[in-house]
Amino acid sequence: MAGALEPREGWVAEHCPMAATLDIVRNRSAFLILREAFYGATRFEEFAELTGLSEPVTAARLHELAGDGLLEREPYREPGQRTRQAYRLTEKGADLLPVLVALMQWGDRWQRDSRSRVEIRHRGCGAPVTAQLRCAHDHPVSGDELELAVRRGRRRTSP
Amino acid sequence: MAGALEPREGWVAEHCPMAATLDIVRNRSAFLILREAFYGATRFEEFAELTGLSEPVTAARLHELAGDGLLEREPYREPGQRTRQAYRLTEKGADLLPVLVALMQWGDRWQRDSRSRVEIRHRGCGAPVTAQLRCAHDHPVSGDELELAVRRGRRRTSP
Repeated sequence: MAGALEPREGWVAEHCPMAATLDIVRNRSAFLILREAFYGATRFEEFAELTGLSEPVTAARLHELAGDGLLEREPYREPGQRTRQAYRLTEKGADLLPVLVALMQWGDRWQRDSRSRVEIRHRGCGAPVTAQLRCAHDHPVSGDELELAVRRGRRRTSP
Repeated sequence: MAGALEPREGWVAEHCPMAATLDIVRNRSAFLILREAFYGATRFEEFAELTGLSEPVTAARLHELAGDGLLEREPYREPGQRTRQAYRLTEKGADLLPVLVALMQWGDRWQRDSRSRVEIRHRGCGAPVTAQLRCAHDHPVSGDELELAVRRGRRRTSP
């Protein structure tokens, strides 16, 4: 990438939204829980079993993701059992799907042992789905066609 | 998401490529280093200063990312100094850009304090760039238009 922001020493990525996202989705286990929520898991035991995470870790991640508004709790009760909580993605949580799809496609391409058994397709047309960079004019954009611009904020003087 | 793979209890996401990607890009600091590489940093001091990471953490991440083939080292020498290493993204590393852009746009949308000063644009047309889900027929795909299908591999019997 290049553009108006060179030289790179002249500014700092303050308030970086990527870092802010990673402050919420902090670790591999959080991504695994979100993956399972996308795949349709709703119950504690499903999350624990399907991610392979321990029950304490599963409980901690569900608690954090619900606290941050990515999952919402919904009480359910099976006959003869106490009321328990199911977890479903909120709009905020579901909006992470492009991140998960982008992570999956990188692993599919670059981690040979991890080619997924699961394919995400467009319902109806059936074609496989990927995360792609597009500009607001709907042009597909490759990495070498990107440039950086300042939206607002301060620039540092030379370091 | 839904589709051929319901009920969710019937299969496990083995060899998950998302998990495999997170085995390589393991932590927030790795993402920060990659961000700076995308933004044009090449030298150790730049990575340390621009990410705010400590020097030992910066050194560890650069070493790991180079070892995993996401960054490549390139010797350089300034007058009167010893030869040092610059770091540049390989194709493998650059292919993570959709992940970073997707993380950024989520933070921009959902983390109010983190609206980025930096905007990624399409060089030439100037329009802002986002990571979008598209199917191979180039339809834009929303989260509720996705379905899961089995590419290959085994299914579990009922749990």
